[in-house]
Amino acid sequence: MKLNCDLGESFGAWTMGLDNEVMPQIDQANIACGFHAGDPIEMQKTLALAKAFKVSVGAHPSYPDLVGFGRRSLACSSKEIIALIHYQVAALDGMASVQGLSIDYVKPHGALYNDMMRDHEVFKAILAALAQYPKKLALMLQATADIDDYISQANKLGIDIYSEAFADRRYDDEGRLLARSQLGAVLNKEDMLKQVKQLSEQGTVTTVSGKVLKLSVDSLCVHGDNIAGVQSICDIRELLN
Amino acid sequence: MKLNCDLGESFGAWTMGLDNEVMPQIDQANIACGFHAGDPIEMQKTLALAKAFKVSVGAHPSYPDLVGFGRRSLACSSKEIIALIHYQVAALDGMASVQGLSIDYVKPHGALYNDMMRDHEVFKAILAALAQYPKKLALMLQATADIDDYISQANKLGIDIYSEAFADRRYDDEGRLLARSQLGAVLNKEDMLKQVKQLSEQGTVTTVSGKVLKLSVDSLCVHGDNIAGVQSICDIRELLN
Amino acid sequence: MKLNCDLGESFGAWTMGLDNEVMPQIDQANIACGFHAGDPIEMQKTLALAKAFKVSVGAHPSYPDLVGFGRRSLACSSKEIIALIHYQVAALDGMASVQGLSIDYVKPHGALYNDMMRDHEVFKAILAALAQYPKKLALMLQATADIDDYISQANKLGIDIYSEAFADRRYDDEGRLLARSQLGAVLNKEDMLKQVKQLSEQGTVTTVSGKVLKLSVDSLCVHGDNIAGVQSICDIRELLN
Amino acid sequence: MKLNCDLGESFGAWTMGLDNEVMPQIDQANIACGFHAGDPIEMQKTLALAKAFKVSVGAHPSYPDLVGFGRRSLACSSKEIIALIHYQVAALDGMASVQGLSIDYVKPHGALYNDMMRDHEVFKAILAALAQYPKKLALMLQATADIDDYISQANKLGIDIYSEAFADRRYDDEGRLLARSQLGAVLNKEDMLKQVKQLSEQGTVTTVSGKVLKLSVDSLCVHGDNIAGVQSICDIRELLN
Repeated sequence: MKLNCDLGESFGAWTMGLDNEVMPQIDQANIACGFHAGDPIEMQKTLALAKAFKVSVGAHPSYPDLVGFGRRSLACSSKEIIALIHYQVAALDGMASVQGLSIDYVKPHGALYNDMMRDHEVFKAILAALAQYPKKLALMLQATADIDDYISQANKLGIDIYSEAFADRRYDDEGRLLARSQLGAVLNKEDMLKQVKQLSEQGTVTTVSGKVLKLSVDSLCVHGDNIAGVQSICDIRELLN
Repeated sequence: MKLNCDLGESFGAWTMGLDNEVMPQIDQANIACGFHAGDPIEMQKTLALAKAFKVSVGAHPSYPDLVGFGRRSLACSSKEIIALIHYQVAALDGMASVQGLSIDYVKPHGALYNDMMRDHEVFKAILAALAQYPKKLALMLQATADIDDYISQANKLGIDIYSEAFADRRYDDEGRLLARSQLGAVLNKEDMLKQVKQLSEQGTVTTVSGKVLKLSVDSLCVHGDNIAGVQSICDIRELLN
Repeated sequence: MKLNCDLGESFGAWTMGLDNEVMPQIDQANIACGFHAGDPIEMQKTLALAKAFKVSVGAHPSYPDLVGFGRRSLACSSKEIIALIHYQVAALDGMASVQGLSIDYVKPHGALYNDMMRDHEVFKAILAALAQYPKKLALMLQATADIDDYISQANKLGIDIYSEAFADRRYDDEGRLLARSQLGAVLNKEDMLKQVKQLSEQGTVTTVSGKVLKLSVDSLCVHGDNIAGVQSICDIRELLN
Repeated sequence: MKLNCDLGESFGAWTMGLDNEVMPQIDQANIACGFHAGDPIEMQKTLALAKAFKVSVGAHPSYPDLVGFGRRSLACSSKEIIALIHYQVAALDGMASVQGLSIDYVKPHGALYNDMMRDHEVFKAILAALAQYPKKLALMLQATADIDDYISQANKLGIDIYSEAFADRRYDDEGRLLARSQLGAVLNKEDMLKQVKQLSEQGTVTTVSGKVLKLSVDSLCVHGDNIAGVQSICDIRELLN
């Protein structure tokens, strides 16, 4: 099981995330492409950091919403989604090529990610975008109980799926995350490490109702916003090794 | 002598330029990349149009200034210029590859173009950006009396230069354009066609002082903002054939 | 019955709308505030035009979405909606005051307008924004069959409602507009003028099902995007006089 | 001598500055208006904080350059400068009025501030903007050896000047700041407190050449970007009391 993290989320004079501390600990860097965060210099810097630590690079495209950090759903047409993914993926892809790197996958960001998981039209638009792109790029999405449906649709178009789980979030019986607003939605560190261990050894999570749910997981999403987050990443890394 | 034109300068709901009428008449399309004009859907559409008419595609990157249409000089560092060129060129390049196209050259837009022609640091930054880019891309710039200096610096880095002249603008003795604010800076149609003929047959322009100046020109920059502009393009095309 | 029109929707180098032709024909100008269209210079110009023709000024705030022209719903919180309305209304209000003008009302734009009409939380947020604003500002919204509910809630907060109808759109039995995608949603000129006459003389519209529906209308929304639109405005103006 | 500080410079999800710690220590808050930093919610929050601590509010308008944080000179016309100041000042002014506050002055930000101090056309445009604004607003600018020229021009238009000095920067003989790139341009804490004491008690600074220069100063500009900055503000406050 790999570790992935959203990186390159600084913008201009504003800093976000402890990228220097996180990069050495992870396997896959989801790099912002300028629509919710990141700017050309930040992208350049983050790519160089990924290169230094031999971390696999994914594009992390978003709805165009800097002030909302891409966290607000925007009613885009499929045509708009395809075009904005092509633009952002291409921008990062070309900047990666300047450094001799190649991007490996795409993970939609924030509201675009959530919309992809709950709205089939959005998912189809994203698949179409990747199918049209001349390089083979995998799509990272959430490991849920019904992930086989997602995988089979993607595979039909020749797209590989990287499924990810969330280390520190409680699952419901459909393998979806409890809303952050619900009690117990975010795990404490002990429970988080327990969930990671279970995922890694059994390939299951214990849901909020107590049910043991099989989850096929390629990668764990971790967060490096602050010192505590970085410490958690180190703990997870140690547990997995 | 080829014809080049700035295209893809619509943005969202706003339309600019008679792209459908211009594209069949030209050889090289300078396509906006989203920083002064153009958006992902507009770029997609303009690339498809270029493909349909087998027109060569150039990236037309700009300072980030939508409201100013990239016409206002912005005091960027060389590092910033390199990064913003990589981002924009890569975005267009990748979107072109989706349609099986490949971009051929880069022509900076507006204030970035003017700054390149008058500020050596900006020119060097642009050369560095192209030299670092993994695909071979030519740089389009203004044919002036001292263009050999530009060409020799570019060639040292392995970059080809496409030199362009302006059909409808009066030149001074250095081969620079008279400022639009000066009397006689913009030629009427008769003088424009005369200038094009002279450029095409003799490789010279007659400057504002009456001097005959040698200008080595690969391409003529034409404008398709309105019906009259499109008609001029057709007239120039006919004259050149 | 007054005539209102969205104006000031040019942006930077891009022109939209025949504002010079429209302004003399209307009573109320809904002026864009920079979030979907309009920029400081465009706002200045449009305010001066409104002043010259003694046209009442309304703020036309939007979700922040230039590339989408404010036509795409954006999942904003009530707090975000209140703040973005305050910002835009204040910007226009202060710029109006520079010219000795005062704004009279607020009409949300595009997706924000539609969301206000179908989502009670959005409507409440907009009312809260206006109630908090220190100047008394009316709210312009769509005249529907259930407009009394909107009016009573607004009045409780001391806010006047300006109800508007659409001259060229077919209504359903709830007094909502048929979606543009539906057959017959947009009226031809003859039917448009018939609808305006009926609204003006009887205070009713004949809906798509043939039902005669009472609509209490203070203002008619007209469009000046092109010559045909301006001609329609002149025809409506003549009919109303 | 008052203390002023740039505040409200967070943007969306990005945090900048220890506003909660700084506000209780200062007299004048220069609040960003959305063009280089700040967004409607951030402005609302910062205004509320200023209100809570009875701190005078100034608008802090900028060139439109979020990614450059307004630190890069942008070649705007006087007309553009006037319009962009009106827009930003009006937005903050109206949002202040929602909270029962009124703004007191304007301090241009970053490159716009520097351009104002070195380019007379920019200074005149800013004066024109304030003279046209219907509320009386002072202009904050840098106390230099030739400040009387600035004051006299401003006063002719009925505009008061607030002159400010920089606590931690070394001055040259013209009362301008040494460029940050020069050795000794930024003072250590001991020298900073010495400079503040001298300014406060003698109304002079000792320049880099050793000359004692009279500086008429109404306010000291302080910085609250980090813990050390906040500590310096507290030390200066203590020294001044």
